[in-house]
Amino acid sequence: MMSRPALTALAQSLPETVPFVGPEALERRSGRPFRARLGANESGFGPAPSVIAALAHAAGDVWMYGDPENHDLRHALAHHLAVAPENVMVGEGIDGLLGLVARLYLNPGDKVVTSLGAYPTFNFHVAGFGGQLITVPYEADRESLSALAEAARRENARLVYLSNPDNPMGTWWPAAEVESFAASLPDTTLLLLDEAYGETAPAGTLPPLDVTRPNILRFRTFSKAYGLAGLRCGYAIGEAQAIRAFDKVRNHFGVNRQAQVAALAALADQPYLEASLANIAAGRDTIAAIARDNGLTPIPSATNFVTVDCGRDGAFAMAVLQALANRGVFVRKPMAPTLDRCIRISVGRPEEIAIFAEELPGALRVAG
Amino acid sequence: MMSRPALTALAQSLPETVPFVGPEALERRSGRPFRARLGANESGFGPAPSVIAALAHAAGDVWMYGDPENHDLRHALAHHLAVAPENVMVGEGIDGLLGLVARLYLNPGDKVVTSLGAYPTFNFHVAGFGGQLITVPYEADRESLSALAEAARRENARLVYLSNPDNPMGTWWPAAEVESFAASLPDTTLLLLDEAYGETAPAGTLPPLDVTRPNILRFRTFSKAYGLAGLRCGYAIGEAQAIRAFDKVRNHFGVNRQAQVAALAALADQPYLEASLANIAAGRDTIAAIARDNGLTPIPSATNFVTVDCGRDGAFAMAVLQALANRGVFVRKPMAPTLDRCIRISVGRPEEIAIFAEELPGALRVAG
Repeated sequence: MMSRPALTALAQSLPETVPFVGPEALERRSGRPFRARLGANESGFGPAPSVIAALAHAAGDVWMYGDPENHDLRHALAHHLAVAPENVMVGEGIDGLLGLVARLYLNPGDKVVTSLGAYPTFNFHVAGFGGQLITVPYEADRESLSALAEAARRENARLVYLSNPDNPMGTWWPAAEVESFAASLPDTTLLLLDEAYGETAPAGTLPPLDVTRPNILRFRTFSKAYGLAGLRCGYAIGEAQAIRAFDKVRNHFGVNRQAQVAALAALADQPYLEASLANIAAGRDTIAAIARDNGLTPIPSATNFVTVDCGRDGAFAMAVLQALANRGVFVRKPMAPTLDRCIRISVGRPEEIAIFAEELPGALRVAG
Repeated sequence: MMSRPALTALAQSLPETVPFVGPEALERRSGRPFRARLGANESGFGPAPSVIAALAHAAGDVWMYGDPENHDLRHALAHHLAVAPENVMVGEGIDGLLGLVARLYLNPGDKVVTSLGAYPTFNFHVAGFGGQLITVPYEADRESLSALAEAARRENARLVYLSNPDNPMGTWWPAAEVESFAASLPDTTLLLLDEAYGETAPAGTLPPLDVTRPNILRFRTFSKAYGLAGLRCGYAIGEAQAIRAFDKVRNHFGVNRQAQVAALAALADQPYLEASLANIAAGRDTIAAIARDNGLTPIPSATNFVTVDCGRDGAFAMAVLQALANRGVFVRKPMAPTLDRCIRISVGRPEEIAIFAEELPGALRVAG
């Protein structure tokens, strides 16, 4: 055999994997397009008309690299958040920023605490830089703040990850509890507070921003309520030195020009965001009602999806998911023990939710 | 002082830097927009009208994540290149892919060979993963194949980087020389052959694709001749196992949806590419003539820019660049010894090149 360039030992140990199979891949396998795309927590209400117009207007400008400093967007975000521009870093979605954090902070073997069943892409990045994941179970379908904090202290964890509101369960903690949790962590443990679903949460869920603390980075995105998932634009908020560290390693020209254009336009159109939030809240209610009509139990949600307890074990919930897919309905489901009894339905447009309503009874019959 | 989460030792050692200052940052500093944007090797001719239409048409779809497998684009590229889809990986520009290569292959201290004055973003990635850069000088304004190969063998280099055609000099080697160079490398040295400017090169510059060799990765992009720099879309071509390795670490949802749409449309519009290539060739001739008219020496170019020997030292060329900037003309320049006597002018639209022609005599007077 010909010898070949060697990957690092770490890279050799990693699987060739994708944290999530995309709906397009499932469609290619089945040979049929989904009739309802309700699995990826995207916003079926789409971006604002003002954003679509801005993207169309700027389409001819894509020959130019985007501003590597993301200056205008950082400044607009800082103004919107009432922090300074040096407290904001824009990146290629929260996914991209989480990868950079893993790279900046993790030595091989460093401990990272998260909940068993929480965001797989974060775990992918931690494993990808050789971090050691320590997981604690959810408690009553919420991430357990006490167990996360206890594990972080016990393991002297380098990073601890919390999503609030939570994905995949949709549950949340009020701000005061999150603040107590953060205060209970070692100064040397960096809290990654993923607020991707912050806009859809009830008032009082997001703690006030405090950019003086060097051990909290908060993450938000244009992918969810703003409806820009396909453009890859998220941001981190934190203390200035922690934010500057991204400049050591980020792909400076990585945030594409259309993302910057769209995010600026989206941020400027708060009335559309408000309308989307109302649509999302109504859609949650509809999905919850459909679940109850079918004898299932919707879990209260602060996000743009509803996680539904199918009342039996993980195999049953998987069979429901599969039967829905066979009927053209794309949903996803949690995979960790106890959470795996659920399926997760993203709030889509009413016509797609109607398809879900139509197909759920048949799917439950087949699965049962 | 409050203790804080510690960066890795490597991250601590890295500067907070940007490999290139964007023209927008220069405009913010001066308070004036550039009248001619001729510094970033973008295509002032812009994307094809068919691409602009496709982007505008797809603007409403950006609420959906892009396909993480980039399936359609990979297949279209494979067909275009007459290789298999498993020989192609799409990434967030060549920049993004080079970062992944550094991550996959470099242990701290591993040797990486490149030319002194070659692509700074590659060096940024190598340093960012703790690689040790070994540089060899250019020879007569070309990357020295013999010196690169000799250094790679001597140092048992993990990676060796060659851009052909070359940036920042615009020079090139014919395919046969590149093939001999590749054949002379150790089997365990991975050749990164950056062909970002491949489309603008004369016939016979790009070696035929051979995807059986595990130690060559070739990189191409939609940023240059195709005019899509702002969308971040490049691709690697190589042996299947080397290509699959990207799946271990890449940000799977990182290639944005608009990039995939635009790249597919651009690839399908080869007549527009041909027209752009003709415009670029004509623009090179115009820039060369302007240089000669001002007593300067244009270096023959296979790229979408012309590097011009200003005939004196680096300080003089820098003064010319600065004087051009003060007159609203954005160009860049090589910084390494001997190359630094030059400035580099990207082929832009005729009206921007006309502004360069108008301002160059005054800039030379001031600099002189």
